Amino acid sequence: MTRPDWIAVDWGTSHLRAYAMGPEGILAEVTSDDGMGSLAREAYEPALLRLVEGWLEDGRRTPVIACGMVGSRQGWMEAPYRAVPCAPMDPAALVAVPTRDGRLDVRLVPGLKQAKPADVMRGEETQIAGALTLWPQFDGVLCLPGTHSKWVRVSAGEVVGFQTFMTGELFALLSESSVLRHAMTGGGWDPAAFAEAVSDALSRPERIAARLFTIRAESLIAGLGGDAARARLSGLLIGIELAASRPYWLGQEVALIGADPLTSAYAEALAMQGVPARHLAGSAAVVAGLAAAAGKVPA
Amino acid sequence: MTRPDWIAVDWGTSHLRAYAMGPEGILAEVTSDDGMGSLAREAYEPALLRLVEGWLEDGRRTPVIACGMVGSRQGWMEAPYRAVPCAPMDPAALVAVPTRDGRLDVRLVPGLKQAKPADVMRGEETQIAGALTLWPQFDGVLCLPGTHSKWVRVSAGEVVGFQTFMTGELFALLSESSVLRHAMTGGGWDPAAFAEAVSDALSRPERIAARLFTIRAESLIAGLGGDAARARLSGLLIGIELAASRPYWLGQEVALIGADPLTSAYAEALAMQGVPARHLAGSAAVVAGLAAAAGKVPA
Repeated sequence: MTRPDWIAVDWGTSHLRAYAMGPEGILAEVTSDDGMGSLAREAYEPALLRLVEGWLEDGRRTPVIACGMVGSRQGWMEAPYRAVPCAPMDPAALVAVPTRDGRLDVRLVPGLKQAKPADVMRGEETQIAGALTLWPQFDGVLCLPGTHSKWVRVSAGEVVGFQTFMTGELFALLSESSVLRHAMTGGGWDPAAFAEAVSDALSRPERIAARLFTIRAESLIAGLGGDAARARLSGLLIGIELAASRPYWLGQEVALIGADPLTSAYAEALAMQGVPARHLAGSAAVVAGLAAAAGKVPA
Repeated sequence: MTRPDWIAVDWGTSHLRAYAMGPEGILAEVTSDDGMGSLAREAYEPALLRLVEGWLEDGRRTPVIACGMVGSRQGWMEAPYRAVPCAPMDPAALVAVPTRDGRLDVRLVPGLKQAKPADVMRGEETQIAGALTLWPQFDGVLCLPGTHSKWVRVSAGEVVGFQTFMTGELFALLSESSVLRHAMTGGGWDPAAFAEAVSDALSRPERIAARLFTIRAESLIAGLGGDAARARLSGLLIGIELAASRPYWLGQEVALIGADPLTSAYAEALAMQGVPARHLAGSAAVVAGLAAAAGKVPA
C-alpha cells in the first residue's frame, strides 16, 4: 500500500499527473485526462480524488503541491502571478485551496509574469525551479520547448526575463487543422528537410508567410512526401522561433527542458548554429521543482 | 420566371453561389452552404439542382460554368491545373462534367499551377480573367486577399507568376482556435493597433513568432482590449505577408480584388508603404471571368 509523505501534481490544460512522494523520491505515478480544459471549478477535487484516493490516510492531511494551469483564473483557484525578476519558486507564495475532503492539504504554485514585453508562464516556473535544484550554480539561458515555448534568462537563482513563442500550438493548428494537413501523410520524419527548413527560416525569416503554402503546393504538384512536409513545417516554425530568440542563445550555452523528440529537434537546430545544449527531462524538472516548493530536498 | 442564357457558378470550399445570366448581365443570384468541403462526389449534381432547378427548361441544355474547388481532386471532377505563364482563362480548356439531368451542360474552369516556386490557385484565375476583361490594358500586380491570399504578376494578358500566403487561414486559426481566442472579445476593430502592427511586422518580420503570444499576455496582465487584440493580430499577419511579397508591390501600383473590409485593410497597409491600390469587388470579378469562359461579352 502506497503511503506518500506528500503528493506532487502536474496539472495542465489537457492532463493531470500525480506522483506519490517518499523520502527517497517517487513511489508511484498516476495520470488521467482530467486537464484544466475539461473541468468545471467543482470538478477539480473529485478529479484529484479519483486519482490519489488510494494514497490518503484517515486522520492525516497529506500535502498536495500542484503546478500548471490548475492555478489559472479558469482553473481550480487563481494563484496570482509573481512578477519577475524573482526566484522561480517561493514556498511562502503557494496558494492554499479549501477542500471538502479533510485528508487533502492542497496548495497551488503561482505562475510568473513580466511587465515588458508583457509575458506570462504557468507551470514552467516549477520546471525552472527544478533545474536550479539539480544545477544550483546554473547561470544562463533555459529553453522549454512546447505548446508555448519559453526562453528564459536565469541569473543568481532568479528568473531575469523570458519570452514565449506559440511554436507548438502553431505546429498543431497548421498540421492538423489547416490546408497543410493534407500534405502530412504518414507519421515519419525527414531530418534533411528539417535542417534545410531551419536554415531557410533563420536566414530569411521574413519569407515565412510565403514558405508555408509551398508545402501544400509541392505536395500537390511536385511530389513532396508526408515525412518531408511534416519535418519542413516543424523546421520553418522552430527556425522563426530561433530567429526571434537570437538575443537569448547567440554565444550562449543553452539548457533544454522538455521531452523527446521535441527537445532533440531543438538541440539539433541549435547545434547547426554552433550552440551547445544540455538536456533535462521535463518530468524530472517538474518533480524536482515541486519538491523545492514542498521544502523537500530532492532525492 | 427566370430563364437564363447560362448560369455562372462560384463553388468554393465552404459556399456555392449561382448567378442566372441574361444578355444584360445578372438576372438572379442564389447561394447555399453546399461547399466542396461538405460534399461527396455524387452530391454535387443534387446540390446544384436544389439551387438552380427553377431556372432550367425541359428540352434545353443550359450551359453552367463553374470555378473554384469544385474542380479539385476532392471536388466534383478534377479539372487539371494549367501551367503559368498562360492566360488566366482558356475557354477550350474547360472540363465537361457528365450529368444525369439532361437539362444541365456543366463545365469546370481549371486552376493554375507554377512549377517553381511551387504554387497553385483554383478560383482566383477566374477573378483575374474577370479583372482583365474589365481592365483590358492591365499590366502589373494583382493582390487577392483571402483565406489563401494571392499576389499575381500580369503582363500582356498572361499570368506570369504568383505567390500564395496563408494569411487568412492563419488569422482564422489563431483568432478562433488558439489561446489567442481568449483575447478576441467583442467584435470591433482598432485602426491604430492595426497600423502599428503592420509597421512592426514589416520592419522586424523576424520577430513575428515572439509578437503573437504578446497579444495573450497583454490581454491577461496589461489590459489589452478585444478590438486592439483582433486588429493587432490582423496587422501582424498582413505585415509579414507584405514583408514576403515586397518584390511584388515595391514601386508598383497594385489592384486589389476581393471583398471589404479585408481589401480595405490591405489598401490601408499598402498606403502606409506609399503604394496606391485600386479595387475590384471579388463577386464582380468572378462573374466577369466566368462570362469570359462562356464566351459572353460582359454587360
